[in-house]
Amino acid sequence: MTADSAILDGKVAIVGIGHTEYRKRGELAHRGTYSLACEAIANACADAGISPSSIDGYSGYAYEAVEPLRIAAAFGAPKLGYAGMVWGGGGGGVLGAVVNASMALVCGYADYVVIYRSLTMSQATGRFGQLEVEKALTGDLSEDLTFSGPYGLLSPAQVFALNARRHMHRYGTTIDQLGEIAVNARRMAATNPDARFREPLTLQQHHDSRMIADPLRLLDCCMESDGAAAVVLTRTDRAADLAQSPVYVRSSAMGADFRYSSRLSVSDDDFASAAQTSLAEQLFARAAIRPDDIDVALLYDHFTPMVLMSLEDFGFCAKGEGGPFVADGQIGLTGTLPLNPHGGHLAEVYLHGMNHILEATRQLRGTAVNQVPSADLALVGGAGGVNPTTGCVLSR
Amino acid sequence: MTADSAILDGKVAIVGIGHTEYRKRGELAHRGTYSLACEAIANACADAGISPSSIDGYSGYAYEAVEPLRIAAAFGAPKLGYAGMVWGGGGGGVLGAVVNASMALVCGYADYVVIYRSLTMSQATGRFGQLEVEKALTGDLSEDLTFSGPYGLLSPAQVFALNARRHMHRYGTTIDQLGEIAVNARRMAATNPDARFREPLTLQQHHDSRMIADPLRLLDCCMESDGAAAVVLTRTDRAADLAQSPVYVRSSAMGADFRYSSRLSVSDDDFASAAQTSLAEQLFARAAIRPDDIDVALLYDHFTPMVLMSLEDFGFCAKGEGGPFVADGQIGLTGTLPLNPHGGHLAEVYLHGMNHILEATRQLRGTAVNQVPSADLALVGGAGGVNPTTGCVLSR
Repeated sequence: MTADSAILDGKVAIVGIGHTEYRKRGELAHRGTYSLACEAIANACADAGISPSSIDGYSGYAYEAVEPLRIAAAFGAPKLGYAGMVWGGGGGGVLGAVVNASMALVCGYADYVVIYRSLTMSQATGRFGQLEVEKALTGDLSEDLTFSGPYGLLSPAQVFALNARRHMHRYGTTIDQLGEIAVNARRMAATNPDARFREPLTLQQHHDSRMIADPLRLLDCCMESDGAAAVVLTRTDRAADLAQSPVYVRSSAMGADFRYSSRLSVSDDDFASAAQTSLAEQLFARAAIRPDDIDVALLYDHFTPMVLMSLEDFGFCAKGEGGPFVADGQIGLTGTLPLNPHGGHLAEVYLHGMNHILEATRQLRGTAVNQVPSADLALVGGAGGVNPTTGCVLSR
Repeated sequence: MTADSAILDGKVAIVGIGHTEYRKRGELAHRGTYSLACEAIANACADAGISPSSIDGYSGYAYEAVEPLRIAAAFGAPKLGYAGMVWGGGGGGVLGAVVNASMALVCGYADYVVIYRSLTMSQATGRFGQLEVEKALTGDLSEDLTFSGPYGLLSPAQVFALNARRHMHRYGTTIDQLGEIAVNARRMAATNPDARFREPLTLQQHHDSRMIADPLRLLDCCMESDGAAAVVLTRTDRAADLAQSPVYVRSSAMGADFRYSSRLSVSDDDFASAAQTSLAEQLFARAAIRPDDIDVALLYDHFTPMVLMSLEDFGFCAKGEGGPFVADGQIGLTGTLPLNPHGGHLAEVYLHGMNHILEATRQLRGTAVNQVPSADLALVGGAGGVNPTTGCVLSR
């Protein structure tokens, strides 16, 4: 036999989505990640019309602290057939969970797989993106940071600020264009009752927000938040009998542009990128579609410039044209590529991309608050960087 | 379509194995886990007759610190198609890496997947199984330990000591019978040049070793060690062209006996078990074999009593008969079920089960130091406990 993507793609569907309330960092610490994960999963199962005890597979994001056996015990599930996760901090991972879940279903390890992410930032994980200053001073840095850390290059914001500067230098990208991505997120979130930041935002307010790592301002960065979200997947033969219209996984993939394997790669000529070109190739090839077939994009928005570069990497616009594309209103609800209609990590909640999968599902069910008319195909993209990047194409 | 284990099982083969030198904890700290992982992977690729740059998939044990992109960068690999790992500390995980690797190959995400484990215990991970006394005093325990920790139930040895006592109480299992597992490991390792502990051991020496957690003595516990090991897998169509006779993955599975989902389950009537019965059912059913078809067993030997209970869980002897089975010499090289002919975690090296996969491969190639004559089928089993347990059946 030979490898055959037809074994997998299109054979699996999202049949349930659920989440908890979304709150500010620390506000759900009293609940704990375990309780939040169970609530999100129970909600996703209710949405699907199945009992949580039917779940026999668990597919997690990197280093998810809530372990599958504890969830299975909570729900009295009689069987566990699959439990897998992926590498990578930040946004590299959560869509890899779609890969693992799909494979486990089609290869017969499980019948209902749940993907979940639960965060209370004050618990276990601490705050994301915090400077590892103490480690830098004591020399106890992880290997990637050994060379750059002592010079102060420590936090994600600092790292991606370099990418942003490179893009601005090479292509004339402006602060206004970055700001437009933050403004778009708030515009979308204004009508989303689950979103944490629903107040409108002007470009001037973006510019006036405090500098985090030049050129990144506070409002270029995703929020810190507590909450959990979950998605239930099953094989398409089972999906037909459930409560919701299935949303099909047309393709899912992992990829890496190796020139970004380290923070030491800053001198590379192609640094003005979100490192997702090889991922994009795989995703579109497996789904047998082109970028302009996509009706709505859910792109990983940890920092505004990385969204802009992702638009280029995925081929929604030419290299270097991300700035004008955004400024021309193409990412608005009536643009050529509506982007993050839930408000994304910048305005709804920061859940490492899980909330993007939920929104893609709502869009393809036709139940989104900011519904893209006749949305047939959605792209969900993870973030590129020092870890493998992941993504999926979903369809009605 | 329906789920079909025929999609996967038997379609994937182990085509290369490699490892570094095995040393005492801390002795390879100067090398670092990254360097060790790369050496083991390079050796496995050389064994297979492929270039390390051909590797396009990475399947890891839980929380493996050496991230795939760094390995890919080291070898100049042009492509990354899959990177997945599994939950679970201790022995739950490494054979789950076989599940992920097999799926990724058959579903077309990658052509050559490497499974690896690299440990320098003084680096990153610290020492395994260390008492979390400080955390217990400050109340900063992980959730599983919240209730049992304050009473002093903290380390793996303490937890598994309870299982051992339960088995002794219910079935009359003796210290001599536990000791025989340690003696067997040393007897095997005596002729293995890679093994760290090659000195013969008597039952008396076992009894005289210092108590760790009654009834577990020092020589009931696996060693602490540094080193790395790797295995390369590919689809069977590619395997035929490579340097070694392929060793086929006949089945691989994950499982859990949920009554063991927490250390709070000590009152359960079936606690005298290694929690592998549901795993065993899946493994044998998928491979369409019975326990007595197995020619050689590589069982996870973190603590001697758990080996004894694993023999029962996998059906190599009746429940409660593990003690007499071991004492009768059935696990020796000329017994009915030769066990861990490399010396296992007790005498070769402790690498979270990776070295067990390597030995199973050597046995099925017919190249082992302590070769089981005409070995056709090998069982490799992970440890049960608070995490999903995993295993695989390999064949010539």
